Amino acid sequence: MDLSHLIAVARGGEPADLVLRNARLVDVLSSDIRTTDIAIAGTAVAGVGRGYRGRETVDLKGRYVCPGFIDAHVHLESSLVCPREFARAVVPRGVTTVVADPHEITNVAGAAGIRFLLRDAARAPLQLFVNVPSCVPATRLATSGAALTAAEFEPLFSDPRVLGLGEVMDFRGVVAGDSRVLAAIAAARGRPLDGHAPGLGGRELNAYVAAGIGSDHECTSAEEAREKLRLGMTIFIREGSAARNLSALLPLVTPQTERRLCFCTDDRQPADLLEEGSIDFLVRRAIAGGVPPLAAIRMATLNPAEHYRLSDRGAVAPGRRADLVVFGDLGDVRPELVYSGGVLAARDETPVGPAREEGTAEPDTRVRGTVRVDWSRTEFRIPANGSRMRVIGIVPDQINTGSLVLPPSVVDGFAVADPERDLLKIAVIERHRASGRTALGFVKGMGLKEGAIAGTVAHDHHNLIVIGADDASMETAARAAAASGGGQTVAVGDRVLAMLPLPIAGLMSEEPIERVREGVRSLAGAARSLGSPLRDPFMTMSFLGLEVVPALKITDLGLVDVEAHAIIPLFAEK
Amino acid sequence: MDLSHLIAVARGGEPADLVLRNARLVDVLSSDIRTTDIAIAGTAVAGVGRGYRGRETVDLKGRYVCPGFIDAHVHLESSLVCPREFARAVVPRGVTTVVADPHEITNVAGAAGIRFLLRDAARAPLQLFVNVPSCVPATRLATSGAALTAAEFEPLFSDPRVLGLGEVMDFRGVVAGDSRVLAAIAAARGRPLDGHAPGLGGRELNAYVAAGIGSDHECTSAEEAREKLRLGMTIFIREGSAARNLSALLPLVTPQTERRLCFCTDDRQPADLLEEGSIDFLVRRAIAGGVPPLAAIRMATLNPAEHYRLSDRGAVAPGRRADLVVFGDLGDVRPELVYSGGVLAARDETPVGPAREEGTAEPDTRVRGTVRVDWSRTEFRIPANGSRMRVIGIVPDQINTGSLVLPPSVVDGFAVADPERDLLKIAVIERHRASGRTALGFVKGMGLKEGAIAGTVAHDHHNLIVIGADDASMETAARAAAASGGGQTVAVGDRVLAMLPLPIAGLMSEEPIERVREGVRSLAGAARSLGSPLRDPFMTMSFLGLEVVPALKITDLGLVDVEAHAIIPLFAEK
Repeated sequence: MDLSHLIAVARGGEPADLVLRNARLVDVLSSDIRTTDIAIAGTAVAGVGRGYRGRETVDLKGRYVCPGFIDAHVHLESSLVCPREFARAVVPRGVTTVVADPHEITNVAGAAGIRFLLRDAARAPLQLFVNVPSCVPATRLATSGAALTAAEFEPLFSDPRVLGLGEVMDFRGVVAGDSRVLAAIAAARGRPLDGHAPGLGGRELNAYVAAGIGSDHECTSAEEAREKLRLGMTIFIREGSAARNLSALLPLVTPQTERRLCFCTDDRQPADLLEEGSIDFLVRRAIAGGVPPLAAIRMATLNPAEHYRLSDRGAVAPGRRADLVVFGDLGDVRPELVYSGGVLAARDETPVGPAREEGTAEPDTRVRGTVRVDWSRTEFRIPANGSRMRVIGIVPDQINTGSLVLPPSVVDGFAVADPERDLLKIAVIERHRASGRTALGFVKGMGLKEGAIAGTVAHDHHNLIVIGADDASMETAARAAAASGGGQTVAVGDRVLAMLPLPIAGLMSEEPIERVREGVRSLAGAARSLGSPLRDPFMTMSFLGLEVVPALKITDLGLVDVEAHAIIPLFAEK
Repeated sequence: MDLSHLIAVARGGEPADLVLRNARLVDVLSSDIRTTDIAIAGTAVAGVGRGYRGRETVDLKGRYVCPGFIDAHVHLESSLVCPREFARAVVPRGVTTVVADPHEITNVAGAAGIRFLLRDAARAPLQLFVNVPSCVPATRLATSGAALTAAEFEPLFSDPRVLGLGEVMDFRGVVAGDSRVLAAIAAARGRPLDGHAPGLGGRELNAYVAAGIGSDHECTSAEEAREKLRLGMTIFIREGSAARNLSALLPLVTPQTERRLCFCTDDRQPADLLEEGSIDFLVRRAIAGGVPPLAAIRMATLNPAEHYRLSDRGAVAPGRRADLVVFGDLGDVRPELVYSGGVLAARDETPVGPAREEGTAEPDTRVRGTVRVDWSRTEFRIPANGSRMRVIGIVPDQINTGSLVLPPSVVDGFAVADPERDLLKIAVIERHRASGRTALGFVKGMGLKEGAIAGTVAHDHHNLIVIGADDASMETAARAAAASGGGQTVAVGDRVLAMLPLPIAGLMSEEPIERVREGVRSLAGAARSLGSPLRDPFMTMSFLGLEVVPALKITDLGLVDVEAHAIIPLFAEK
């Protein structure tokens, strides 16, 4: 952008590229709404006021204009699509900037995964920023595809799209002064450090904040959020596909506190993105919940921009990016037009432009073909070595689990799945290095009466995870999931009922998001047809491997007692 | 600061250095006031809450504690003292951080002047940040001692105490797209760019903001400030010694706008600093004017910290600097204790520690001996070359002037001062390069009946400026001002009545600020004894050389028609 041209347009000396006339401007800076014109030059707003000439003019006839929405924290891998397709879902919702924490793909592909996301997003009308994942791998209790050490941060930070440090999930490590996590913090010193401290309070929270961590998106109550706010944290109010905290946190919003509150989606699935929306959904929900529209919009725009020091956006003002959302009803913000960097990117919630360009398939082999399994060493049988075994207890719609102790169902000396008891076998197959390592266990609550489900999405290590009513179905599902470089499958016996290929890191499709939504639906439908009562069996399964959320989880190294931070045997003593 | 120690103190694992008990904490983050304890480790707050142990404990017995005040914009040369002495005046007032625009000393000594300020401040309990002066020299219509080009910014920016670009006074240059000023802006891209745009509005203001300039401290009305606020500027509400805008801008303060408002002093003289105070004075005035105390304190703390991205201060919270102000009355904030970086720096508005250390005189010759005048070529006589001459018309208590046309008083073919008509001679003697160049003119409104005043403080070029009723007095005053490396003087005939040496760059004393205040008083008293009715004749004189403020000014190159941006002759045509 030529600054002297921008200035010339602003002062009226040269025509604007585009003038939006009769905009009812939602001014998040001065908290007023007024009708005016907006002159755009290149990617930026040049001037706000009457009298600008433009090569193109659009009369908005009094419709509202606010800044493009900013998602303060999102794992875009949860959309199961690549950034360009993610953009096709969220840009029509008014989201023009997202701050992603790419810790899923980084666990698979390391820094190459981050670079892939940035490269792919560069072709979309969405500004993607990333925070460097702070916890890859999350722990030493699982095998991930890559590690990202503090020494690798500096080259990433040389990219202006890399802002700071992603959510520091190892809050216990921070509080204890663990050297690995402090090294990551030191390497990102002076940059925004994102937090993740569910339920942390008191002196432990003081310690976490003293380390320099400046935000948290895990608050589930206004009291929790207020304590964090008082200590200096910016609170990201989250409304994901699973974790939904907006209603609980609305009491926190006052004119005095609002500046320290932002919105984020954290994790949203394709159907929720396409049907509910993204940050626009939170804006509507907040307004419906009684937050003044100006405040709700500011929490989606200026506040995250200021938190991340993105001084070139977050408001409609000279010199800032022309990321603009046009809508008709302040009480029910539904984007009619979305401009991204001065270019019309969506109309009536539909992206402008094709779903994907020809010949743009990702060539980087470091994010493709990442599923490597030594099937010759894979074994699903479990010798029955006791009368009491530890079983993962699914809690519907939660990512934490119960830790149960149940007697095995034994056939021919082997502990087997027993659908009658809703006792299914679970396997985690190491899939990054073809080590052949497989951990086996049992799970209760998945509800399959027959068959199996499998997938390469398994937080955070993303090994191949399988749950089934019999070993043959498990092997069919697992092999099918692995076959196309990763994916999610449902199988019965030797028959694959449903399959969603996820060839990018085993996490993301390259297909249009609408098709991926259908794939997700058919997977869930197939799983439900096999008896699962869960709303989303695959999301539930994907968190059974997350060894940092209580109580009992499973990785390729075995069952994990999360509180004890230890691998424990399947069969309990005495 | 050892982060792991700070964390250990925060979690309660190690004792704090200091615990302030029973503090009534003014929480600018969550906008509440609550009684709690504050634990300090090293220079930082480790934890806020009950139960901390400390090697030292102070029971505040319910007195209020707020963060240290931040002056968002100050030319500390206006205090006429060095940073350490400036600190002795403002730290007891609760000011623990200032953002200085050192354009006075830079006009004399270039980057060496900036480095001197930083070096001197490093020994004070005051955190000095600087913005690189953007306009040195201000124009080509005067001779300054140094130029600072955009190419010289980068080495300065490598110092973390150098934040961004100082007030871009050449707003016309910005609006016109002048290449020199755009080069300065480009060199500071991504950093805070301070503005200076008195009265600018409409599309010209849009152009100025589009250039990336993010603040303004020149607003004199709420309407002007609101227009700037709407376009994205942070408004620094100024209450200097001369320019006082607080009352006019208070209507702007609402819960919605307050976050974009800060306080600054811009220019404050020793007496005002010692008697009224600094930012504490603005806080008291704002509260007295109806601003809620929490909001007023936030405008003095969190808001400037966030504007300048100083995320390590601005609030009392873990990990932030332990810059703390303790006071007893929320309606009349008078600091009783001031902690700077965890160390007690002032008690009852008196600094803790001596006025100055022995053997700490500034050794840098680049900021000493800066007054170089070739007296052999200095000439005060003015041949009478016409019947109508241009006269600078002083406007009391303003820095702008009128441009008058009056007949000369002629004696022996020379235009002479004529105190009966309040027509005094003014001379600007180039003093950086001993060029002997002297510009001569006349001024109305200074009111001297006899004698002369002279000084090396003359914005922004800081040449030697003299005003007098006769040439002999002018030469005496000028030579005395030059004699000790710069200063301000009053003389009659060959007798010096009062003198304040300013050996640092001809701008600052090395004496204690109390003594400098007495020097200023005796100067003003002497000038008034000679007939001047002005409140502050020396401040008025110091702005008569400022060629960027309307209407008629004088530099060493001659009379300046500010609107025409040109040197013009003393005698008017026809």
